[in-house]
Amino acid sequence: MRRLLVIVEYDGTDFHGFQIQKRRRTVQGELEKALRQITGEKIRVTGAGRTDTGVHAAGLGVHFDTEWSKSLPVLQRALNAVLPSGIALRQLAETPPDFSARFSARSRAYRYTILNQAVRSPLAERYALRVSQPLDAGAMDAAARCLIGLHDFGAFGTPPRGDNTVREMFAAQVMRDGERVLVDLKANAFLYRMVRRIVGTLLWVGQGTLSLAEFREVLEKKRCAGESVAPHGLCLIAVEYDL
Amino acid sequence: MRRLLVIVEYDGTDFHGFQIQKRRRTVQGELEKALRQITGEKIRVTGAGRTDTGVHAAGLGVHFDTEWSKSLPVLQRALNAVLPSGIALRQLAETPPDFSARFSARSRAYRYTILNQAVRSPLAERYALRVSQPLDAGAMDAAARCLIGLHDFGAFGTPPRGDNTVREMFAAQVMRDGERVLVDLKANAFLYRMVRRIVGTLLWVGQGTLSLAEFREVLEKKRCAGESVAPHGLCLIAVEYDL
Repeated sequence: MRRLLVIVEYDGTDFHGFQIQKRRRTVQGELEKALRQITGEKIRVTGAGRTDTGVHAAGLGVHFDTEWSKSLPVLQRALNAVLPSGIALRQLAETPPDFSARFSARSRAYRYTILNQAVRSPLAERYALRVSQPLDAGAMDAAARCLIGLHDFGAFGTPPRGDNTVREMFAAQVMRDGERVLVDLKANAFLYRMVRRIVGTLLWVGQGTLSLAEFREVLEKKRCAGESVAPHGLCLIAVEYDL
Repeated sequence: MRRLLVIVEYDGTDFHGFQIQKRRRTVQGELEKALRQITGEKIRVTGAGRTDTGVHAAGLGVHFDTEWSKSLPVLQRALNAVLPSGIALRQLAETPPDFSARFSARSRAYRYTILNQAVRSPLAERYALRVSQPLDAGAMDAAARCLIGLHDFGAFGTPPRGDNTVREMFAAQVMRDGERVLVDLKANAFLYRMVRRIVGTLLWVGQGTLSLAEFREVLEKKRCAGESVAPHGLCLIAVEYDL
């Protein structure tokens, strides 16, 4: 038996999120189906986190145990050949037996992409949320930087199974790149819906309806956070591991 | 009656090309349906060219005549509201009555995107052709530059309805941007399948199986051109008009 870590990329458009569900196409379900097809084993995989329906991933870490004794590049190619076109294994490596894609993760980095223009753009909107009103990306960036450090993020999301809501934000910035406004967040872990509610609140700042001081009050739970924005603008960029 | 020019963007994945066909979803068909729904008129539109099934467009020029007397921004918003999410009108402007989206076009610019990496990438491959073998983009660029100027491009494509095969290439270059290799071509007009067969031949150059001298021989019809590459990497970037 050996433990393997795979880095998975997927276009979330056509999946009901990561976590396996009966009679629904999920990333975990497709991975386990492909593993069974190639190895003949009934393998359960563990992901670094659970992305929601419609959320994309450029590099989600996933581990599993297998009896596979042949080379890892052969396994990777075989799995990529049977996985649906929307999912691919970018890397595959052996880990110590006590490694966990979830608990050994040092950080998760997400990017939320906003297309800030009045007119629809079919070629850009598969991976970006269009916002018509002009956004002040500088104001959004100043607000995002308030999130850096150890904070109770309970204002922005709920924890899994009664866990606490304190997380450490390592990096938070908002950049404008032409018509695009990119929100980059990196933390040790995220609460359910946290990135999308932070972005929803940053949009108020960008539109001038929430001041920097008021944004801080949201973090301090003295004001309500914005709504969770649509999933298709969100991408889990990378998970960092201590290996 | 007034003549209008619209600049259309579309994700070609879900359409059977531009040109209207019975019982098939095409860009022209969807545009004419939306025009009828908003104006009540039965309008025929004329495009600058006809993209094949699966080819994308960031800026295809299309003209039509209408009795619409209200403001153009209102018409644009109304059409964008009823068009499917894969098609959008980026601009709408009035033209002289003798303007033609096809015949008044001074140039067409296409980009073909190659993803040059061994492993599949679901987030990139909707709009790029993946090529596993390493490509020498510098050699491809040198070959592409041979195409600039007035040439008989009959080696790379067929003309519509017995037209001649001489076209003027204004710009041709190949650039590497990380894992991406971008082929940019701009000409007064293109033959059927011309961009995709040029890219197919440039791939031979990039893989080292065709020399620069041999690429020139293809243009001179002394050697066969490469196969037409897949449509999903191709995008009509822009059409230039004398207005």
